Amino acid sequence: MSLPPPTKRETALLRSLATRQGRRKSCCCRCEGLRAVRELLSFFPDKVLFCVGTEKALAEIQFDPARLRVLPEHLFEQISGTVSPQGIIAVAEVPEPPEKISGDFIFALDGIGDPGNFGTIARSCRAAGVRELWYTVGTVDPWSDKAVRSGMGAQFGLALRGFSSLDYLLSTAAAARYDKFFYADPHAGESCFTAPGIYEHSVVIIGGEPSGSHVEQAQSINIPMPGNYESINAAQAATVLLFEYVRRMSLKKER
Amino acid sequence: MSLPPPTKRETALLRSLATRQGRRKSCCCRCEGLRAVRELLSFFPDKVLFCVGTEKALAEIQFDPARLRVLPEHLFEQISGTVSPQGIIAVAEVPEPPEKISGDFIFALDGIGDPGNFGTIARSCRAAGVRELWYTVGTVDPWSDKAVRSGMGAQFGLALRGFSSLDYLLSTAAAARYDKFFYADPHAGESCFTAPGIYEHSVVIIGGEPSGSHVEQAQSINIPMPGNYESINAAQAATVLLFEYVRRMSLKKER
Repeated sequence: MSLPPPTKRETALLRSLATRQGRRKSCCCRCEGLRAVRELLSFFPDKVLFCVGTEKALAEIQFDPARLRVLPEHLFEQISGTVSPQGIIAVAEVPEPPEKISGDFIFALDGIGDPGNFGTIARSCRAAGVRELWYTVGTVDPWSDKAVRSGMGAQFGLALRGFSSLDYLLSTAAAARYDKFFYADPHAGESCFTAPGIYEHSVVIIGGEPSGSHVEQAQSINIPMPGNYESINAAQAATVLLFEYVRRMSLKKER
Repeated sequence: MSLPPPTKRETALLRSLATRQGRRKSCCCRCEGLRAVRELLSFFPDKVLFCVGTEKALAEIQFDPARLRVLPEHLFEQISGTVSPQGIIAVAEVPEPPEKISGDFIFALDGIGDPGNFGTIARSCRAAGVRELWYTVGTVDPWSDKAVRSGMGAQFGLALRGFSSLDYLLSTAAAARYDKFFYADPHAGESCFTAPGIYEHSVVIIGGEPSGSHVEQAQSINIPMPGNYESINAAQAATVLLFEYVRRMSLKKER
């Protein structure tokens, strides 16, 4: 069975999604790469408008043939906008998070400007089984090409909620009874390995500033660094805190 | 005081270090960015042949004026070879690791092909106070521009040792009495949070293969992922294992 190429309208939509403005206009995003597309399809097959790829890449997924579009490799490279395109891009509506907030705690990002870091943090959340990933306006768009690619589509398995300020984020959380706040501080606070209650109906905040932006209402928690090193990056700090949660949960289960 | 530009010979050396071949020939590497250069200067000021930068960037470091070379911004961009140059590059001899192996355990990378991952892992080692970072021939060159940049020069604070095979790496470690081997396995093994003795005169190996390449002599250890997620990347796995070491050490101290 031979599949059609994308229509002109589809191609225009695909291209428009390279910019934040374009994504806002259509409320859609692009999801590139086999693993990311599979993650998307496992959560939201109905949100996928169409999927463009080389014949070889399209053969690797299971999806409604009526929404598959094929392109020869050289045209795909033009359309993809990345240096090493992965042969497949899905265009999907950005999913709305469910109304109900769920899970032991909320992980919050304040001013994480790097899409690669955001993607890595999204993957760590997925792996750790943490569903609520919230962010403030200073944070990169979680649905940008690079963030989705770095996250390998982990975004689609999370409840992402954006806020105009950290205050607004925290008051929303508190209203849902997530009312203890912890802030990862590179230079002060109790050790994240011993501080009690970090993951119990709380918000754990990671900031983008190396100095650790000051959050008045939050308790500082510290990742000990015996190497006497200036700091690790936000994605590393997030990974440490998310897997400390995993560790504590696995201990609880054993009891 | 006005500083001279780099000589033709220095410029040629600087350019040659963009390739692995060039680095091998001169046994030098480039170290780009203010933070990386500071890390280099804190460990090996004597290994620095010269430091090229814009006037503004050079004013930010404290170093022998006779080895400073200045370039106007537009010429610096040409020479740097990165999209967003950071205004300063040091050229240094690649430091030899000390003969004596030190520390509680050796962290080993087998086939980590991505320089960004290598750099992140180097930073996590530095932060965790782990000094021995070993790697096999399938791993990226730790002294490539991108690896040094991603590591922010953390390489200079580590004992990096390269091996032609994992077998050779392990036998060298065993000869130095680091003779228990643990392999991070995404799908099998005892939990890294409970397995005893992981960091006691041992080698902890992270592999680049998502499937986890088989290491016969090594005990599998697993990073639990309650999110039922395929895998996290090598740098994230390394960060979890390195900070689990930090956690165990901090508990020991408290006792």
